[in-house]
Parts: sequence; C-alpha cells; structure tokens
Amino acid sequence: MTTPWHFLSLRDVDSATWQELLAQSEILSGARGRRPLLQGKRFGMVFFNPSLRTRTAFEVACSDLGASSVNLQVGGGLWSLEHRDGVVMDGPHAEHVKEGFAVLARMLDGLGLRSFASLSDAAADARDEVIRSAAAASSVPLLSLESAMDHPHQGLADALTVRRKVGERAKVVVTWAPHVKPLPLAVPHAATLAFAHEGHDVVLAHPPGFDLDEGVLQDASALAEAAGGSLSVSHDRDAAFDGARVIYAKSWGARGDYGAPETAAAAVQAHPEWIVDAAAMGRTDHGVFLHCLPVRRGVVVTDEVLDSPASGVIDQAAARLDVQKATLCRAMGVTA
Amino acid sequence: MTTPWHFLSLRDVDSATWQELLAQSEILSGARGRRPLLQGKRFGMVFFNPSLRTRTAFEVACSDLGASSVNLQVGGGLWSLEHRDGVVMDGPHAEHVKEGFAVLARMLDGLGLRSFASLSDAAADARDEVIRSAAAASSVPLLSLESAMDHPHQGLADALTVRRKVGERAKVVVTWAPHVKPLPLAVPHAATLAFAHEGHDVVLAHPPGFDLDEGVLQDASALAEAAGGSLSVSHDRDAAFDGARVIYAKSWGARGDYGAPETAAAAVQAHPEWIVDAAAMGRTDHGVFLHCLPVRRGVVVTDEVLDSPASGVIDQAAARLDVQKATLCRAMGVTA
Amino acid sequence: MTTPWHFLSLRDVDSATWQELLAQSEILSGARGRRPLLQGKRFGMVFFNPSLRTRTAFEVACSDLGASSVNLQVGGGLWSLEHRDGVVMDGPHAEHVKEGFAVLARMLDGLGLRSFASLSDAAADARDEVIRSAAAASSVPLLSLESAMDHPHQGLADALTVRRKVGERAKVVVTWAPHVKPLPLAVPHAATLAFAHEGHDVVLAHPPGFDLDEGVLQDASALAEAAGGSLSVSHDRDAAFDGARVIYAKSWGARGDYGAPETAAAAVQAHPEWIVDAAAMGRTDHGVFLHCLPVRRGVVVTDEVLDSPASGVIDQAAARLDVQKATLCRAMGVTA
Repeated sequence: MTTPWHFLSLRDVDSATWQELLAQSEILSGARGRRPLLQGKRFGMVFFNPSLRTRTAFEVACSDLGASSVNLQVGGGLWSLEHRDGVVMDGPHAEHVKEGFAVLARMLDGLGLRSFASLSDAAADARDEVIRSAAAASSVPLLSLESAMDHPHQGLADALTVRRKVGERAKVVVTWAPHVKPLPLAVPHAATLAFAHEGHDVVLAHPPGFDLDEGVLQDASALAEAAGGSLSVSHDRDAAFDGARVIYAKSWGARGDYGAPETAAAAVQAHPEWIVDAAAMGRTDHGVFLHCLPVRRGVVVTDEVLDSPASGVIDQAAARLDVQKATLCRAMGVTA
Repeated sequence: MTTPWHFLSLRDVDSATWQELLAQSEILSGARGRRPLLQGKRFGMVFFNPSLRTRTAFEVACSDLGASSVNLQVGGGLWSLEHRDGVVMDGPHAEHVKEGFAVLARMLDGLGLRSFASLSDAAADARDEVIRSAAAASSVPLLSLESAMDHPHQGLADALTVRRKVGERAKVVVTWAPHVKPLPLAVPHAATLAFAHEGHDVVLAHPPGFDLDEGVLQDASALAEAAGGSLSVSHDRDAAFDGARVIYAKSWGARGDYGAPETAAAAVQAHPEWIVDAAAMGRTDHGVFLHCLPVRRGVVVTDEVLDSPASGVIDQAAARLDVQKATLCRAMGVTA
Repeated sequence: MTTPWHFLSLRDVDSATWQELLAQSEILSGARGRRPLLQGKRFGMVFFNPSLRTRTAFEVACSDLGASSVNLQVGGGLWSLEHRDGVVMDGPHAEHVKEGFAVLARMLDGLGLRSFASLSDAAADARDEVIRSAAAASSVPLLSLESAMDHPHQGLADALTVRRKVGERAKVVVTWAPHVKPLPLAVPHAATLAFAHEGHDVVLAHPPGFDLDEGVLQDASALAEAAGGSLSVSHDRDAAFDGARVIYAKSWGARGDYGAPETAAAAVQAHPEWIVDAAAMGRTDHGVFLHCLPVRRGVVVTDEVLDSPASGVIDQAAARLDVQKATLCRAMGVTA
C-alpha cells in the first residue's frame, strides 16, 4: 500500500506543509470551516490518557465538517493494548496495536492516537514506540493526539496563536514551571519546534537538569536557522523573560530521574520561584502568557497572571479547533 | 459578555419561562421535534457522575434536532477538575473548572454539567459551588444535568408527566422512601419545586429528620401559593397518601448526618415501612406512581407496584426527551 | 405490544433469515451501504464489557446509513445494572435491566447489549439471563453484541469471510487454542453455528474437557445436516487440520472449572502445543487462518502465521461492518 500521510511529529514536517497547515487553519476558522467538506468521512480516536481539548476539538471539527467520529478509551471500554514486537502476549494486554489499528483503518478514514510518555524509560520514550507501531499498522492517516515525544496539534495551535497575538518575529520564551509531579516532554518539544518553524527567537528557559531531548533540540535549531530565527537555552529565568513578547509556560520532568518517581517529584517541586507571577511578567515587553492547559493554578502560574488580560490561554485552546480542522482535511485529501 | 441563559435551578425560573418550556416540550414531543431546528449546533456534556436517562435523552435530542453532541466523563477520560476559588492546585485535580468550561464554551454552543452533592458538607452543597463556578466561566448557556441542589430537567419531566396523566390541580405526594445508602436532595427539591410551579397541592412526606433545604422549601411555598396551590409537610405517611392522585417516591439522606456515612446509612434503613407497596397505594385515589429512576426494587417500591398499570415511571423517563429538547432549543435561541 | 425482532442467537435464526442477512451484508458492503437508508433512526448500545470492533463497526454503520448512535458503558458512566427477577435490590446494583432497557427503548429505535459469561455458574450462563431479561424489557429490536452464549454478529462475519475467501462447501476447523485465562464460549458457539448454517463440514477440535454447550452442539448438528454439511468433534488436532480449508482458532475455558479460577487458568495453559503455528498450518489445504480478535500473539497463534498471507483476520474484522449494517437495517425494517 502507499504510505498514508501520518502526522506524528513537527520534526517530520517540511516548511511548505507547515505553512499550508497554518494557512488552512485560518481559512477553516471561519464559515468555510462549518461546511460539509468531509461529508461521509469517519475519524476514530484512541486515547490511552485523558483529554478535554483534543477530543472535544476533534469531535466538533468532525461535526462542523460533516464527518463522523468515534472515540475509544483504553481502560474505559477498550481492550488493553500491547505495542512491542515479537513478545509472547501472556501478560495483561489482550490485543496488539498491530491488529487494533489495522482493523480500525478498515472501518475509518483517519485515525488519532494519544499515548503519553512512560516516564520510566527515557530511551524507549525517545523512540516513541506506541505511535510508531500504530502508524506502521494503519493503512489510513494517523494523527498524533500527543505521543511520548511530541504534541504536534498543540504546536500548530501555539504558532497560530502567536501569529494572531504578535504577528511578527519575536522573542518567545518557553519556560519550565514548577509542578507536583514530573510530566512528559511532548508539549515543550512541540512548542519549541513550532516556534522554530515560525522563525521566532526562541529562548528555552529551565533550571539545570531539565534538558529537552537532544535530537529535538538539534532539529529545532536547524528549523529556527532555516526560518531566519534562533534557538538558545538559558538557566537564568529573569534574563530569559527580559523583553519577551510571549511567555509559554509548561512543567516537565527531568529525564535523569526517569524510573525514580520520588526523586523526580522532588525535582519539580524544588524550584517554586519559577512560578510565573506578576513580577516575572513585568520583565517582559507586554508579554502574552500562554499555556497548553490543563494548568495548576498557584503552582505553575499565579491566579493574578492567569486571570489578567495578558493571558491568552483560552484563545490558544480555541485555536485547537482551527488547526485540527486543517490536519483532518489534509488527512482526508481535501483543501478548504 | 452578555450573560447567557443558564438553566441551573427551578428556583430561578419565572412563571412565563416555566409555562413556555412545558408548552415547547409538548410541541417538540411530536414530529416537530424531529426536524433540524438546531442544524450545525453543538452541545457538550460534562458528567462527574453516572447517567443513563439524562445523557441518552440529550444525545438523542441533539440528533433528532440536527445538532451534534460531545460527552465527557470525569474519571473516564477527562481530567479531574477543581472548582474552588483561590486554591493552590497541588492536590489531585489537574484542571480548574474555570479553564475547562471557558475552553469548552469556545468550541460548543451549549453545555451541560452533572455534579452530585458531596453529602459531606451540607453548607457547601447548599451553595451548589461546582455548577455555579462552571456557569460563571461559561460564555454559552449551561444546563444543569443535576447538581447538588436541583435537577431541573427532572422536575420539568415530572410536571409534564402529571399534566399528561392527571391534567388538573391535584394532591401530589412527594414521599421519602427507604434505601441502602444516603442519596442527594436534588430530585426531591426539583419535584417539589416543579409541582409548586404547577399549582398542585403538594404534600411532602418524610420521617422526622429528613427535612429538605429550608431555602428551597420557602421558595417552593411561595411558588405554590403564587400558582394557586399549596405546600405542606407531613410525617404521617398514611395520611399523606389518603386520596392522593400522584405518589412521587424518592429516597434521600438526612442532612444532619452529612459527613457520618454509617449513621447516614443506618438512618435511611431505619424506616423500611416507608416502602411504597400495594397497601399504601390503596389509600390513594387511583394514584399514579412516579419515580425518577434508577429505582431499587424491593427497597423503595415493591415489584407489585412498579409492575402495575399504576406505575408511570417509564412514561416519566420518556418525557425527559421532550423537555430536554425544549431547554436545548431555548439555550440555542430557537422556538419550535 | 408486538414482539420486536430481537437478534440474540444464531440458534434462533431460520434458514431464510440467515441467507437474507448475508445477502444484505454483501449489498451493504458497497456504495449502497453508504446511503441514508436509516436517516433519523437512533441506535443505542450498552456494554458490560470492553469492545473495539463491535462498537466501532456499529457506530460507523450508523453514520454510514444516516442514523445516530449512543454508547453506554457499565462502569464507565452508566449505573450498575441488576438483571435477576424478584430480588430485593439492596446490593451494589442501582438499576434493574427492566427499567433501563424499557426506558432506552422509548428513546431509541434499536438497542444492542454486550454481556459476557460469568464463568462462575455454567447453568446461569447457559440461560443467558442478562440479554434475555433485556430483550423482555425492550419494545424495540435488541441486537446481541455478544452474550454469555453467543456472538451472532461475529458468526455472520465469519460466514461472510469464508464465502469470500473459499466460496464453496469446505472443511472448516474450529480449533481450541491455549490462553492465559479461561474465556467464554460465545465465540466458538457462534462460529460453529455459523459454519453449520453454511453447510460446511465443521470439525470442532479441542482437548478433552473443553466441550461446548450440549444444546448448542445439538442445534449446530441439526443445522449442518439441514444445510447439507456435517459437524464432528475431534480431540486429535493434527487429524483435524489435515486438508482443512479454514482454521478458525479461539480459546475458551472448560465449563467444568467454572467457579475455580486457578484450576481454570491452569487448564487453558496446559496444552501449549495447541498454538497454531506454521507446522500446523502446513497440514491444511492452503488453509485460511481466522480468529475473531483480540488475539494474543505467541499464545494462541505464532507471529509467523498471523503475519502471513494465510491470515484473514483483518478482512474478517472488516466484514463486521457489513453484517452489522445488515442487522441494523433489518431491525429498523429497511431492505437495502
């Protein structure tokens, strides 16, 4: 079979596709996004993890475009799935991703999969095995709904939001934030790659020990350079915030602590001063505050900042609907 | 923004709206309720608790009217939600209702929320904090799918069912019933308010110690009086049933036992003679038996009564579809 | 009320209905299955157990045919359901199947129910009480999505797949396979009944002690004979496979071990040589390998066989969409 268009990572997206997806997102954000462009098409989603925005935006995108959608939740009515090759399946998993996605691909015209990082094996997470296994099994396009390594629809929405709110090359800070437990790196990866694609001057700010995946950083640097921007890493939060136009906050765990949950939790609780508060925002150039949501108030960001006019998080989430319409249309071979 | 039409409690509904909702329910119960009046609209539901009738009726109402629906289940694929103001979110909840409902409101044209009473803090339940917090965050109409204090769609369906089965001012008994565990007061509140709106002679029958919320009782008295009816409370089950045209059974817990689960369970098991059986129904004037469902056979009501022609519970549940079409249309600004 | 068309078991289906369902399945597999034949109809499913294929195929079948669907999951947002007659419901179950299905039947035009065998009480399982109770309560057609005793849609898809891949009367082996835990008998029952309906020469191969239900075997024998085929049972796996055109593998537990989980698990692990491997397939006459899925790789069948061109499991699963469109249309009174 011809390889279908899978959308798994912003690292795989070339410049023309990137620009086209964002252009289509804008077109589909209006009345042209509420026409039966995908009449009769069916989209199916498999979630290994919770979702509010991603699932709702895809279900609404489908109905707005005349398509239908099916939502399957592992642990909520779906068989438990194995993804490793060559294993004897005598453990808890009743079905292999190979059969599961091959079957779904025969009933549906496009698929989505959410599978978070294990946070126990950094090397396995870096291979993004679950979504890669599903993509190999699927004869129809597979869209990432967030995998261990990337969250490409979030990155698209982030880029679109900054286009709408800033509209030009700008200093954009992706800043680590405190949390109560270690979280995956998919979102900071996606945001960094997205702002690199856009040619912003991206500053990745985090305490020592919280480095992102090296391969992602290399790709993001190359993308930023090609787009006329830059990527730098800083451990100095104040310097990073100085004059920034966008503050993109997100917590993530230290990869060195994978497999050691207590150490990992202590590490993300060890820098409470990295909370985004009004003083920090005061260093920026009328900076817009962004976060992918869900966000923990009083831990990642103060209520004062989140409830201020500087916060763009609701607009950012709403942009998910626009970009997901664009990837759905591309997956189904339709141009708006 | 303009405040949207939220439908949270029958205490907030004026007489004209009440009459209009019931009139629209009748219109929408027939062929006019299976036309694309809401074509292109999207309705989203968030359930903190289980549902059969409410969810099914809204999903079917949407498809009958040409709208689409999204169903999100807390603990079943949705993030756990915080609703309190000003707290540091370092506990189990990943997302605040403020962000959750603000985001959903950007993707959907109407929302619904089910959030049962805590049964641990009577004062907090009386403030109905979860649904009030969601309503404040939502820029689109929010419909209660049952909150701590009220279940307004159930009340509408109850009133519609009595209109259909009795058709005139009548003695209507809302009677407490035994159970195995304490249940919330939302349904007896809703039924009492609904029958008060209708101007029936409402008798609320329960053993001592099972008083409903005082504010609800005051409002229900005022509503009954304004509508030409009456509201009284009785601890004498037999006297209450004498000559009644409608027996509306429901169990609920004693608010004085909130926070003491074992005491509360013992209290609802302490009056097994309040089960609605054939002897009790024999005291009525050809009384119709109603219950909101789900109902525990042999505990709340005998099989004999529930399986008799006097039971209207299936018609009552079916009326949910009609009234939920009416509130959906009102929320979307459409008159049938 | 007139008894609606319930589709609960292949034992209840007469020859004309069987042939018509398969003929309609073929018609509906093409463009005629993607037209609004069921416009405005609503189908509801209740799952007591997980599902991937059944649920997805019904949701897609509905959208392809212009109908809407509702999916309810016991333990995933639906009340826990009691099905026994005459019990005092003072245990964990909040609602009786009688009310649940009677209400759903008032809001929907067709229903489906999945309720697996208990594996604890063989006699109760043989009575198929849950689905029979639901059928008695439903005023609209009820389709089995797999019950304790049968999985009729799977059997239809199995028969259709063999028609497509073999196309003539053939030796078809339904073979027991190893597993890690005991599984219900619904699928081997359905496959045996389906191939009997088709007039194949059915060989049921299993180790001693794994007999299927006696009543099912009697009915299957009668069906096979009436259709010009045959049914035999063998404990000799190699002899069974010799010259077979179809190998249908499935594990199931020994009914004698019901209620003794450890003994039952040991029993299904005691015959690892019954795994379907290349050597076994080599005994067949270019045999097609079938399995209903989900399947445990390396336990039931080797990767080598499952990934070979002889494997028809994905086509078999895809056929579920065709046959479920046929039963939906029949349930709704529509001929394609």
